[in-house]
Amino acid sequence: MNEKELQSYLAEASRDVEQALDRLLPMRQISPEAAIYFAMRYSLFGGGKRLRPALFFAALEACGAKRDAYLDVAAALEMIHTASLIHDDMPEMDDDDLRRGRPSCHKVYGPAMALLAGDGLFIHAFAVLSRPLPGAAPERQLAAVREIALRSGLGGMVAGQAAEWDNMTRPVDQGLLEYISRGKTSALLIAAVKAAGLLAGADGEKLQALDDYGLHAGLAFQIIDDVLDVEGDDATLGKPAGSDEERGLVTFASLLGCDEARRQAEAEAEAAVAALAVFGAEADTLRAFPPFFVSRRH
Amino acid sequence: MNEKELQSYLAEASRDVEQALDRLLPMRQISPEAAIYFAMRYSLFGGGKRLRPALFFAALEACGAKRDAYLDVAAALEMIHTASLIHDDMPEMDDDDLRRGRPSCHKVYGPAMALLAGDGLFIHAFAVLSRPLPGAAPERQLAAVREIALRSGLGGMVAGQAAEWDNMTRPVDQGLLEYISRGKTSALLIAAVKAAGLLAGADGEKLQALDDYGLHAGLAFQIIDDVLDVEGDDATLGKPAGSDEERGLVTFASLLGCDEARRQAEAEAEAAVAALAVFGAEADTLRAFPPFFVSRRH
Repeated sequence: MNEKELQSYLAEASRDVEQALDRLLPMRQISPEAAIYFAMRYSLFGGGKRLRPALFFAALEACGAKRDAYLDVAAALEMIHTASLIHDDMPEMDDDDLRRGRPSCHKVYGPAMALLAGDGLFIHAFAVLSRPLPGAAPERQLAAVREIALRSGLGGMVAGQAAEWDNMTRPVDQGLLEYISRGKTSALLIAAVKAAGLLAGADGEKLQALDDYGLHAGLAFQIIDDVLDVEGDDATLGKPAGSDEERGLVTFASLLGCDEARRQAEAEAEAAVAALAVFGAEADTLRAFPPFFVSRRH
Repeated sequence: MNEKELQSYLAEASRDVEQALDRLLPMRQISPEAAIYFAMRYSLFGGGKRLRPALFFAALEACGAKRDAYLDVAAALEMIHTASLIHDDMPEMDDDDLRRGRPSCHKVYGPAMALLAGDGLFIHAFAVLSRPLPGAAPERQLAAVREIALRSGLGGMVAGQAAEWDNMTRPVDQGLLEYISRGKTSALLIAAVKAAGLLAGADGEKLQALDDYGLHAGLAFQIIDDVLDVEGDDATLGKPAGSDEERGLVTFASLLGCDEARRQAEAEAEAAVAALAVFGAEADTLRAFPPFFVSRRH
């Protein structure tokens, strides 16, 4: 699959997951809590790349399952990702006024409503995930829910954010930086591909392969994110470039320099693809993502 | 069951759920994310009444099930409740410096870590809830998870908080105030008793009775909360009395006056007990809670 084919795969995945999101979180204009729906939907439909849903779909494909029965799971992954972005941008965290070229949620709806919108999205994801899925045995579904909860929470994303925040003023080495990135970035990619494997009934060897894939793909993604913050321009990034350096953040780019960081991102992308050796051609879509993570411009 | 017996029931429920919490969230002192564990545990072990776990246990009893297999569910309910308190207290929300007589989480660990601690507890609750429960069929477990997610999120607690926040500056009548309280307070009580019913395999009639019970018990609880904020003193409440009025909040006490509010709380408590008519003596513990909600001093 070449980059153009991957772009059209991503566009189709976006359409599918956005339809599911709109169905699962319809606007409630005439309700005392209308404001939280405006805030959640503002951030949900803010032009994200929908990478986690797309990876989830590609992993279903690799494990021989169709996406139609599992669109809600893809939507739940995107709800969790969006919730984390809303909270990340808040004044007490990164204090980012812009997200994807638009004012961030708390700039538009205020920090209280942004806090609640994040909480609402985090929790609603699990309401969606625990709805009966006709396609999956309840045991498998519970295992997928648990995988997603662990990876997005204390066994992954939230733990990574806490580790980053608490080590802001300490000397950060590459080991710690990788630890943080495994939590902040890899964990939810692992959740996406492993939840697909669990729902599709993949065996232990394949689940481990998906785990390794998500880990390395996430590191490739994060390293390039750091490089783009140095090399990119505001318009392409949708946020001010150089914001990491301005905040005094230690990143892969600041620690290794952009050239060495790019080299390491390429090695991680190769490791991600190599992890899929146990799969045949059915994982070719999944194999197309890591090189794209490295070559992307924003 | 008299009030003294209920107090000892509550003490035992507290012991059980605190042991489960300590097991499910052990301190991680030597880890890059140690700070979030300090923050979560500070708030989790801050002397809460553990009402939701106790109601969950009492509802299990009413439905003929033993609590031992379901201690983790009780702990998850308390994690969700604690997460909501941490976020409620934050500067952008109620801006409360005190909670149960101690500095609130964000005063001790800072608002960023408090934000993450709340997120961590919300999400970890669902990691705990989706772990295989030997006692329950997976379908029933999924139904309980879904009930808890809906009631704590957009079908209950978070929606109620959003409705309250967004109507702060508008004239609030008793209808809207009840709507908000059904979300903010009743919803998680309903989740506690209905999750118990679902796990124990209660029939539709009993599930509806538990739903009605939780609704009315929650309103009784909230009305008295508002009254105590007017009539109580700082030391007994563990926070400054009169804080609702100071914030210009419309409450049952300000809308109805304390005497009429108390009368309505008693009526709600009676309605909660009446809802349990379908149960026999096995629901006597559950029946003891609503009168206690009305007679409590803090």
